[in-house]
Amino acid sequence: MYALYFSPNACSLASHIALAESGLPYELRRMDFGQNEQRSAEYLKHNPNGRVPALVTEKGTLIESPAILAFIAQSAPEARLAPLDDPFEFGRMQGFNSFIASTVHVAYAHRRRGYRWADKQASFEDMAAKMPQNMHDCFAIIENDLFTGPFVLGENYSVADPYLFTMSGWLDGIGIDIADYPKIADHYRRIKERPAVQRAIKAEASAS
Amino acid sequence: MYALYFSPNACSLASHIALAESGLPYELRRMDFGQNEQRSAEYLKHNPNGRVPALVTEKGTLIESPAILAFIAQSAPEARLAPLDDPFEFGRMQGFNSFIASTVHVAYAHRRRGYRWADKQASFEDMAAKMPQNMHDCFAIIENDLFTGPFVLGENYSVADPYLFTMSGWLDGIGIDIADYPKIADHYRRIKERPAVQRAIKAEASAS
Repeated sequence: MYALYFSPNACSLASHIALAESGLPYELRRMDFGQNEQRSAEYLKHNPNGRVPALVTEKGTLIESPAILAFIAQSAPEARLAPLDDPFEFGRMQGFNSFIASTVHVAYAHRRRGYRWADKQASFEDMAAKMPQNMHDCFAIIENDLFTGPFVLGENYSVADPYLFTMSGWLDGIGIDIADYPKIADHYRRIKERPAVQRAIKAEASAS
Repeated sequence: MYALYFSPNACSLASHIALAESGLPYELRRMDFGQNEQRSAEYLKHNPNGRVPALVTEKGTLIESPAILAFIAQSAPEARLAPLDDPFEFGRMQGFNSFIASTVHVAYAHRRRGYRWADKQASFEDMAAKMPQNMHDCFAIIENDLFTGPFVLGENYSVADPYLFTMSGWLDGIGIDIADYPKIADHYRRIKERPAVQRAIKAEASAS
């Protein structure tokens, strides 16, 4: 049994969907960001960086979305969630997921979490004002260069797909129309229809 | 033959060291950041995000340090650069490398690359002023929680080691004494003595 620490509609949704696709047994542990639970002493034992997701396994806890996504895929090879036998294709998947984690999600975080990197209110406002342009630049790179189609890597679904789906779902809230990126918009619609994705979305909604 | 796009002493040093440890054949292609070569049309074909490293292989180009490091380890299993047969330990390695990429390197980038996330000079100065505290917080998490010892993952060397080594090497330039983190300081000294690390450092110095 695995346990996933998550917050509804946070980046942990990608790992949640991957678990739902995998067939592995898991339970959900919701973190209340409003109560700053992700900074509690108990949670910091799981992830000293105080972020979701964290995946508790019988061997210990794993942190960081790209690592958890790859672990889920490797732990359920029959679910075919990653190109496990091809180091180059696996590297493309990990490169895409690392770009999401290090560039896309970081760009988004400057909307409301500027206090991580600066101290002054004027800086936070400057960062928040620039964020939509940065998110557009990121999605343009994905649309034009990184996305193969119909799935991120091409013909086969992988854990890069729920990670992109999760980021795509944030666009509306920052005033960006996903229709500006036709391939990503089509991908979002198709991924959303998958039964495992529907189950994960409903479980997060009922947990919040 | 692989080709690594790098800039001397940038985060690409980790991938360079991993190649030197791997026994795989490779050549180096230096990017001149002073000439903004990483934003040239030719380089953007390799990495549309305009960053180093990028690794050109016979199948195509891989981007993002955590993905390139894992690919090198998987492509040279006899060099034992990663726990390839243990998904949990591999996940610990990828989680560590993703923390470096998404949190440590991002914290460092706010020193001189604040223009990525804001537009005003006052914001850049605010970010630069906060950066040393953020880097300290990151290294305290590594020293106290993430580092097993004697190597990052424990008894066995992995590609997480040159990645930590590369970040540790940046501390002096931002006024942080690595001796504040005794385990990391000891790790830095030991990694620096490795023949492959010495070769990579010399190659980058003679290329600059």
